[in-house]
Amino acid sequence: MALIVQKFGGTSVGTLERIRAVAQRVKQTVERGDAVVVVVSAMSGETNRLVKLAQDLVREPSGREHDVLVASGEQVSVALVAMALQEAGCPARSFLAGQIPIRTDSVHSRARILDVGVDELRAALARGEVPVVAGFQGVDSDGNITTLGRGGSDTTGVAIAAALKADVCEIFTDVDGIYTTDPNIVAAAQKIPRISYEEMLELASLGAKVLQTRSVEFGMKYGVPIHVRSSFDDREGSWVVQEDEAMEQVVVRAVTYERNDARITLMSVPDQPGVAARVFNALSEAEIVVDMIVQNASRDRDMTDLTFTVPKSNTTEALRITELVSSQLGSKAVKADRAISKVSVVGVGMRTHSGVAAKMFSTLSEAGINIQMIATSEIKISVVIDEAYTELAVRLLHTAFGLDGPVAN
Amino acid sequence: MALIVQKFGGTSVGTLERIRAVAQRVKQTVERGDAVVVVVSAMSGETNRLVKLAQDLVREPSGREHDVLVASGEQVSVALVAMALQEAGCPARSFLAGQIPIRTDSVHSRARILDVGVDELRAALARGEVPVVAGFQGVDSDGNITTLGRGGSDTTGVAIAAALKADVCEIFTDVDGIYTTDPNIVAAAQKIPRISYEEMLELASLGAKVLQTRSVEFGMKYGVPIHVRSSFDDREGSWVVQEDEAMEQVVVRAVTYERNDARITLMSVPDQPGVAARVFNALSEAEIVVDMIVQNASRDRDMTDLTFTVPKSNTTEALRITELVSSQLGSKAVKADRAISKVSVVGVGMRTHSGVAAKMFSTLSEAGINIQMIATSEIKISVVIDEAYTELAVRLLHTAFGLDGPVAN
Repeated sequence: MALIVQKFGGTSVGTLERIRAVAQRVKQTVERGDAVVVVVSAMSGETNRLVKLAQDLVREPSGREHDVLVASGEQVSVALVAMALQEAGCPARSFLAGQIPIRTDSVHSRARILDVGVDELRAALARGEVPVVAGFQGVDSDGNITTLGRGGSDTTGVAIAAALKADVCEIFTDVDGIYTTDPNIVAAAQKIPRISYEEMLELASLGAKVLQTRSVEFGMKYGVPIHVRSSFDDREGSWVVQEDEAMEQVVVRAVTYERNDARITLMSVPDQPGVAARVFNALSEAEIVVDMIVQNASRDRDMTDLTFTVPKSNTTEALRITELVSSQLGSKAVKADRAISKVSVVGVGMRTHSGVAAKMFSTLSEAGINIQMIATSEIKISVVIDEAYTELAVRLLHTAFGLDGPVAN
Repeated sequence: MALIVQKFGGTSVGTLERIRAVAQRVKQTVERGDAVVVVVSAMSGETNRLVKLAQDLVREPSGREHDVLVASGEQVSVALVAMALQEAGCPARSFLAGQIPIRTDSVHSRARILDVGVDELRAALARGEVPVVAGFQGVDSDGNITTLGRGGSDTTGVAIAAALKADVCEIFTDVDGIYTTDPNIVAAAQKIPRISYEEMLELASLGAKVLQTRSVEFGMKYGVPIHVRSSFDDREGSWVVQEDEAMEQVVVRAVTYERNDARITLMSVPDQPGVAARVFNALSEAEIVVDMIVQNASRDRDMTDLTFTVPKSNTTEALRITELVSSQLGSKAVKADRAISKVSVVGVGMRTHSGVAAKMFSTLSEAGINIQMIATSEIKISVVIDEAYTELAVRLLHTAFGLDGPVAN
């Protein structure tokens, strides 16, 4: 008998019919002899509806009240899923974050889980009930409701699995797994049977929206196998697990891209200590998140170019701030380019295989694609290119790294 | 400086515009120098929407999950009202039942409040915040969410006022007070400036829907003045208060009617101990609530007629059960009549004034209206008549008891 956490996203509980289907699936798992804890998101569209209510009502909703408001979405779905399970003959009981409790810090709208109580859940399981847990929400030490940010229900699922030492956390979603790249761009994209936590972390932070980054961190920290699979069929999906030797045989696990950044360049700034600090402090005070940063080697004597990327939506403000600092520094000019994209290859095999960067750069260069910026980690290489070449670059790299065929573990 | 609980019903917070109006009204009270605790219902239509979701999903929603589901409606409205107050420059903080806590028994969907915590509310008031409390909901001793039944937010308001020893609980609603009778039937109906708790209790249990019965009981038990008034203007409404001598000068405070009952008669049952018990035990086991009961004096030797009223919606089942018992008792026949109504006059003055019953009966008899059943309490006389005469009877009694003119205290 296994202990399984099954997390269902918003589309999986988006209608009453889908809720009944979720109940049937959970019931099948229970009838197979496994113990199940269910975690659910709000019905699809509900969180957006609630956020819009607040936005239409006031200019700037307080974080505390925003969380009280949107947490009501999961309250509705746990009650409905518990009812559907009971109707299907499967004893069930809903749990809100405060009833478990799922303790978080007090950072509203993007709280971090600190601790998950297990006594109430274990007691319910011992009574033969299926606990149906509200995803996305928590309570802080003062009993205030918090929320974990978009995709937070994934993190709830994995955190509950970690606390209960469950055998697996199944993430049911509207895609059937994690792919070697976006199937909308590359028809030959393959479902990845097994991927390491670290690779998945890179993919999640590079914009693959299958799992919230935090949930992967939790899985890695507590060794919870995560099974990402479709809520519409019974096929195996993708397993996010501890890295093993077989995984290192594959040099590149996936190719990913991100179009949401813009590039800003300060031309000819003094090459002296404190310049970068002044720029990035000013941006940080405006709560603008900088992603890639490249400082070119000096061309002129004592002068350098400083280039970085920011979210496209912050471009105008980032430009304004940078120009202000630039004029104080005596920089020649500031340029912004919104027509960029970041293309990345990810794989733990890079640790033991050389030549990945060279192969990536030559593949792009042979197609006449200019590389504007480069950033690397131990298991990832990212380049910034002209946005127009995004699909082409992704397709070429997917082929070059042997991902078009059936994918090995 | 007074401490005022202001309770706003579903229509008062039914739109974002109405919520802003609520915030303005609360702010005015605060700026006048008073301390305010706000209690709100779910936005109008929301509770019905949630109940329908459950009904469409399953045949019989569990009480526990039903309460988790519908309590989400008040969670939305407290967050929005708190936001609107903050935007209006009035510090505010939402409170769910569990955060106060409002402790109830565990009877889902019609829980009774056992205890209201005051520390959190007092602390918020001391910080200069307006607590915005979710009406209608509670938590039981195991931390399960409960709800208080339709109109339960009134009870939340009065219970909070009682716990905080507030000076008044203002009930803002879509009518501007309590009337001597239904203004839809009698154009001359007058707003009652002051009414005693006991009179209001009779009116509420007779079907006047302005206040939940439980809220009046709370007000009476703890001596909380309740001010029922319109959320659309600033005029005085009706005060529900402790009875005083002036009130006894008025013999009849209000005339009320109820069309939701049906009458069932067992003809010629044996006039012996235990007969009534058999009938009403059987009905009670089927959870059918019996209102009025009349047993006629024996006509035949050792035989009697037994007549009672049940909710119209239970008529068929009540008839079936009664016929079963009747056949066992050897009763002659069972009759049901759905075309009845109950008309009542209510007033604490009846305690000290005689002749009220005589005046009521003669008023009806002069108009040719036959009285089928009579029930009395110390401050109320109810009669059952042919439903067709309802409006006529109400109008005649309203005039006969001097309620058409301006109403005294």
